[in-house]
Amino acid sequence: MSEFNNVTVIKKANVYFDGKVTSRTVVFENGERKTLGIMLPGEYEFGTGDKEVMEVLGGSLNVMLPGENTFTLYKEGDAFTVPANSKFKLEVTEVADYCCSYIKE
Amino acid sequence: MSEFNNVTVIKKANVYFDGKVTSRTVVFENGERKTLGIMLPGEYEFGTGDKEVMEVLGGSLNVMLPGENTFTLYKEGDAFTVPANSKFKLEVTEVADYCCSYIKE
Repeated sequence: MSEFNNVTVIKKANVYFDGKVTSRTVVFENGERKTLGIMLPGEYEFGTGDKEVMEVLGGSLNVMLPGENTFTLYKEGDAFTVPANSKFKLEVTEVADYCCSYIKE
Repeated sequence: MSEFNNVTVIKKANVYFDGKVTSRTVVFENGERKTLGIMLPGEYEFGTGDKEVMEVLGGSLNVMLPGENTFTLYKEGDAFTVPANSKFKLEVTEVADYCCSYIKE
């Protein structure tokens, strides 16, 4: 699926880390929410509320998930899941394009 | 209007200048097309195809339009129009969030 149809897009961006991580929020007819974002090279730590499924749309993300002590590289087309109410680390070495889905549990 | 309803969003980002300028394309029911984008600090030159109306959603953009020889600062809530098939320059000193509308003439 290369596009999302019949959705609502929030105009204003979500901006983190001085703009090195930004995203736009997309809301689906069923209330589901995703963000489409860009990460520039850098090291980041994020906390989750809902469970998140992160899909790499372009570039790559080096990720350390909760409970792990090494980074795993996820490339275009790959996805990983982050548990609810947890923290994960990212090392980004090239511009990464991603889609994050928020999963209510 | 703080959100766009019943639109199609292209998942993959448009990436320029090593990711310092990125945007997502939004297509409306009537076929109209807009991009929602982020510019990080830097100096850029862009060329237009269609006429463009640029709305500043956050931060600011210092803009030199075609035929001008000085920059004008546009802040959140401001908008400016760039003629079709022309070039314009931007000096960005803070993270800027923008919406660009492409106008068929």
